Amino acid sequence: MIMSDFKDILNNKVNEAYDLIKEFLPKEEGLQKRVAESMNYSFNSGGKRLRPMFMMESYRLFKGEDLSKIAPFMAAIEMIHTYSLIHDDLPAMDNDDYRRGRLTNHKMFDEATAILAGDGLLNYAFETISLAMKKEEDPVILKRMVAAFEVLSRKAGINGMIGGQIVDLEMEHKKDVSLDTLLFIHKCKTAALIEASLMTGAIMAGADDENISKIEKAGYNTGLAFQIQDDILDVTGDFKTLGKSVGSDEKNEKITYVSLKGLKESEEEQKRLSEEAVEIVKEIGNGDTFLSDLIEYLITRNN
Amino acid sequence: MIMSDFKDILNNKVNEAYDLIKEFLPKEEGLQKRVAESMNYSFNSGGKRLRPMFMMESYRLFKGEDLSKIAPFMAAIEMIHTYSLIHDDLPAMDNDDYRRGRLTNHKMFDEATAILAGDGLLNYAFETISLAMKKEEDPVILKRMVAAFEVLSRKAGINGMIGGQIVDLEMEHKKDVSLDTLLFIHKCKTAALIEASLMTGAIMAGADDENISKIEKAGYNTGLAFQIQDDILDVTGDFKTLGKSVGSDEKNEKITYVSLKGLKESEEEQKRLSEEAVEIVKEIGNGDTFLSDLIEYLITRNN
Repeated sequence: MIMSDFKDILNNKVNEAYDLIKEFLPKEEGLQKRVAESMNYSFNSGGKRLRPMFMMESYRLFKGEDLSKIAPFMAAIEMIHTYSLIHDDLPAMDNDDYRRGRLTNHKMFDEATAILAGDGLLNYAFETISLAMKKEEDPVILKRMVAAFEVLSRKAGINGMIGGQIVDLEMEHKKDVSLDTLLFIHKCKTAALIEASLMTGAIMAGADDENISKIEKAGYNTGLAFQIQDDILDVTGDFKTLGKSVGSDEKNEKITYVSLKGLKESEEEQKRLSEEAVEIVKEIGNGDTFLSDLIEYLITRNN
Repeated sequence: MIMSDFKDILNNKVNEAYDLIKEFLPKEEGLQKRVAESMNYSFNSGGKRLRPMFMMESYRLFKGEDLSKIAPFMAAIEMIHTYSLIHDDLPAMDNDDYRRGRLTNHKMFDEATAILAGDGLLNYAFETISLAMKKEEDPVILKRMVAAFEVLSRKAGINGMIGGQIVDLEMEHKKDVSLDTLLFIHKCKTAALIEASLMTGAIMAGADDENISKIEKAGYNTGLAFQIQDDILDVTGDFKTLGKSVGSDEKNEKITYVSLKGLKESEEEQKRLSEEAVEIVKEIGNGDTFLSDLIEYLITRNN
């Protein structure tokens, strides 16, 4: 692919995904409007809309045609991702003041509001799914929605994203983190929602169990490769731009894939994972190359 | 009813409800087991199991017979209630160290774990519903489950419980709270989950829209009467037991129904609301009196 062309296509896809999901945001009205303002502030703080985009493109990969069927799930996963960032940024968690160049939710509003805005977004994700289900008249589509709801809630929960967060929290200041534990954190914290995005797209398009498993594997590989790339950039990126080789994670003495396995082996593993993901997607794709291009783009990025 | 007999019946019902819902708790296993321990700590901290019990009894009132169909929803609403207490107790919210005579979640564990345990319970509530839906083969029951899921998520969200919490937060130190605002808070924060309990029981038993509306009204009245009774007890209870007429809410100068309308009018309104709720339930009940007895019991309680 030619990179500059791909960036144009990507921007169009991001805009397309955002246009679809923003329709589902809560109205800022009523006595309780402050919580909706706080939810929307974080939801609308930019971001790459990766998860909704992955979901939309997986739906298309499996020949899904009616975007109105996938849109509520796209909105739901972005709400779940957004709530996790709001709660992650809280003083008791990562204590961050800025995200994407803007004040974090609890800095813009206050801590109590940020807690409720996070709760509100998580609840609203499922409210959005429930409303779409209630309106659905086709029993075949309804069955798919139930399956997608089950995957999404499982991957976001204590055996998925939240599970990764609690282990990450416990490991923060330990120096004896094993590779297995690190992989568990990455699988749950980073890969689970990517897996859920791709699987939900496939399920809603009517994919069979074998293909749903394949795309889950592509999601796992992409999520893990993305995370290893982050760790690599934290070392090499800083070296290039700051002229020193100490990354921010290393300064905090946080264990990363690179600190455990070394740069060379990390680069090889990242390459292996991403090539496998691209291969899976290409095999399903029948000529549709955007999703494989997107995976390649994400894991060859240099910032 | 004879009070001592009723208390025995009530205890049996509480135990029955708890036996049904505890099956749905997450296993404390895996690397992430700390979050399950934290979730279960709060879930198992006693409590009256009012919402699951209301749901179970509403299901029975409408001649629902297969408790396995209502049990996942009973567990889900108790998980939602429990998460709301964990987050409410956080330092940034009410900053409480004890609840029901035990350390609050963030005191027993830590603040970050309590945030994740709350998120975990909210997510697990919906995960539980999604799993039950996925297993359901009868399309008629599945349709009811979708309707129940929609009601539950709406009443728990920003137009229900969370909406009440944010307004309550904003009103905390204001002295010009109007009766409308106070009623909004009570409707959302207290009544919404009672409404959801009764409605979900009715929906799962196959009640028609008219009866679902009626039972929603009974839930609203019960929730509001329960809250006014709380405010009344805060004044009269303290007077009797402590020999002074200043309740804890009054000391904090928090506006209550009693401070706005006076004791006499509050008692009258509480009586009117509860009598109406009992009447609705009796009309539906066809001789089943437990639910109406329960409502009477709750709002004539003196502690």
